[in-house]
Amino acid sequence: MSLKKKPVTGMKDITPREMEIRDYVIRLIKDTYSTFGFQSIETPCVEHIENLSSKQGGENEKLIFKILKRGEKLKLEGASGEQDLVDGGLRYDLTVPLSRYYSNNANDLPSPFKALQMGNVWRADRPQRGRYRQFMQCDIDILGEPSILAEIELILATSTLVGKLDFENFTIRINDRKILKAMAAYSGFAPESYDLVFIILDKMDKIGIDGVAEELVKEGFPQENVDKYLGLFKEITNDLNGVRFLKEKLSGVLEEECASGLETIISSVEAVKTANFQIVFDPTLVRGMSYYTGPIFEISIDGFAGSVGGGGRYDEMIGKFTGQQTCACGFSIGFERIVMLLLEKDYQIPKTGGKKAFLIEKGMPADKLLEVFQKAAEERALGSTVNVAVMKKNKKFQKDQLTAEGYEEIREFFK
Amino acid sequence: MSLKKKPVTGMKDITPREMEIRDYVIRLIKDTYSTFGFQSIETPCVEHIENLSSKQGGENEKLIFKILKRGEKLKLEGASGEQDLVDGGLRYDLTVPLSRYYSNNANDLPSPFKALQMGNVWRADRPQRGRYRQFMQCDIDILGEPSILAEIELILATSTLVGKLDFENFTIRINDRKILKAMAAYSGFAPESYDLVFIILDKMDKIGIDGVAEELVKEGFPQENVDKYLGLFKEITNDLNGVRFLKEKLSGVLEEECASGLETIISSVEAVKTANFQIVFDPTLVRGMSYYTGPIFEISIDGFAGSVGGGGRYDEMIGKFTGQQTCACGFSIGFERIVMLLLEKDYQIPKTGGKKAFLIEKGMPADKLLEVFQKAAEERALGSTVNVAVMKKNKKFQKDQLTAEGYEEIREFFK
Repeated sequence: MSLKKKPVTGMKDITPREMEIRDYVIRLIKDTYSTFGFQSIETPCVEHIENLSSKQGGENEKLIFKILKRGEKLKLEGASGEQDLVDGGLRYDLTVPLSRYYSNNANDLPSPFKALQMGNVWRADRPQRGRYRQFMQCDIDILGEPSILAEIELILATSTLVGKLDFENFTIRINDRKILKAMAAYSGFAPESYDLVFIILDKMDKIGIDGVAEELVKEGFPQENVDKYLGLFKEITNDLNGVRFLKEKLSGVLEEECASGLETIISSVEAVKTANFQIVFDPTLVRGMSYYTGPIFEISIDGFAGSVGGGGRYDEMIGKFTGQQTCACGFSIGFERIVMLLLEKDYQIPKTGGKKAFLIEKGMPADKLLEVFQKAAEERALGSTVNVAVMKKNKKFQKDQLTAEGYEEIREFFK
Repeated sequence: MSLKKKPVTGMKDITPREMEIRDYVIRLIKDTYSTFGFQSIETPCVEHIENLSSKQGGENEKLIFKILKRGEKLKLEGASGEQDLVDGGLRYDLTVPLSRYYSNNANDLPSPFKALQMGNVWRADRPQRGRYRQFMQCDIDILGEPSILAEIELILATSTLVGKLDFENFTIRINDRKILKAMAAYSGFAPESYDLVFIILDKMDKIGIDGVAEELVKEGFPQENVDKYLGLFKEITNDLNGVRFLKEKLSGVLEEECASGLETIISSVEAVKTANFQIVFDPTLVRGMSYYTGPIFEISIDGFAGSVGGGGRYDEMIGKFTGQQTCACGFSIGFERIVMLLLEKDYQIPKTGGKKAFLIEKGMPADKLLEVFQKAAEERALGSTVNVAVMKKNKKFQKDQLTAEGYEEIREFFK
């Protein structure tokens, strides 16, 4: 009886080489974030189906892997629909479980609580190159801190981490949901059309400012509003002056505190940063999730398309979830994307101990075998890797393979 | 709308304190096993339902969490049973996925292949204290090594790991499936009754030798066979002499190579061991999984009931799975049990950097805030944890809490 050899559709087996990179990045993340006072937590991979379907997860709720009720609870006959058969699902992100975790454990947690979560999530997406149905997410969140201290710490922690991964240069773009709204209000758009306006604005980097103008007009927005709106974008610079320009221009529509906060975030990060990156104000940054309420940010690595992480403030989500208002801000790093980039550039992990192979002749007597194991134990205690293996008939081939696997020293032991 | 706060039945939220221990143990495992040349791999948590139901998993196959087919593939009406609704399940161990992984990737892997797997598995067991429906397993396996080199390396690696966890003393018990069978054959039991005989023998530590005798007779086995069988156990010692006694006594029924191999394993491990433990021959050791074909072993920590790990040789399982004969031997360490024991004895993780808290007065101007972040960045770069937080009204309470969380130094910064 021969069974299915391939992994299930859309998921993958991870090779030793990729695991080496993954383990290295995981360790770097844990070490770096821990110096910022983040504490690791974990939630079960299986979550209540009610929680997963609570409309906090947006489009991801359509992609849930659902788990069948078990045994006697499963009554196929008489089941009127899926809801009678399912009582759990695989989590599609770490934010919904974090909300549940916090409401379940807040009494035992410090306030504010700085959480680090690394874990697999599952989405039944259409399989495509480089995107899998099981992937690791890595989130840091600060719960219960209303001030921009949270944003600054999150951005500093994330940029310190990315800096340690030896990427040449990277960029953090920042905006604020309140600025997005104030700019739309200033230009005469009605609040109920904001979502549509932002969806179109979000295409700026693909279709350009003229494309955005065209689409807005096509959607029936008055030319006058569109001109006023896009006129703003033409005047705004990508730096602190851009923020200051808006603070003045939008006075009366935008809380002054919002623009000042953004100024402080940008100037603090710029002054304190330890890695080679720039932080820029990007008034076109929208980010998809509708639950954001304040500053939003994204990180991209120069020379690679797409972002490798993002986040923002979501002060209302946990309250909706738990009934108790809790401000929150998070930054999620694109773990899988970073691993992919490191693999693509054949990243070499900083070496620790040496790698040695001990080849022993077949049929070696027990007392001589002992000596080999003793030598291996001594080397291992000093931190070296020692791979003890039986000598093969084709010894040259065996040695070539070991060399290719990174074994620098190969010793032979005979009867 | 308030949602479910507790985790799903039988699974748990992991606290920061437990995560600290888990992360420490995970790191120690990866580091220790890597010096033995084991390479990490990972398989998806979701596995083909056919593979999970292949009868390799014994009783665990009854405990599978099954995953519903998605979308249009799911036709509730007309479904004649579960098989029409399900196309995957959560893995209940790491051995079945390893078999699939090896058959899928063998061409790209070294031979022999030394695999390290750490990952969650799921079993819909009846929930009970200290046992959860999601738990981490940690397996090392050597595939393609027919000699006892595999057993020796697995036992040395595992004992080196446990030794590093500062348990006072521990014991590795070892036996061989072939010895179990030879003893039964020698005593006159028929091969088809071996399974039942071993199930009863397995109770030796609970019901004693008289209890075993009673149950065997109750099952209808001839008194003569039972007496001959249990007579052997009375004569066998727990050391090398016990193995040598059997080698002589069972000559003709037991391959000599088997007993000699066991002798070499025990003497090598005894001579090379780096930790404080003993390895003993235990002819009553059965281990549940029927797929074992050679040496079997278990590890227990003195002063704690039950085992904290076990394994053995299973030369036929992968072949049954893939159609290609591949010898294999593995040792699984009871990760959850070890974490529980460390938590119970309030294990203190070896310290790395210091832990400092910087408390800043509310409303601090941007330029002064900057200085605090700069100081924090300097400390963090040196490896210290620095938790920057806003000063609370009840500062004494806040400082007491930080001290309780292990912050040794608390600095205050004012406007």
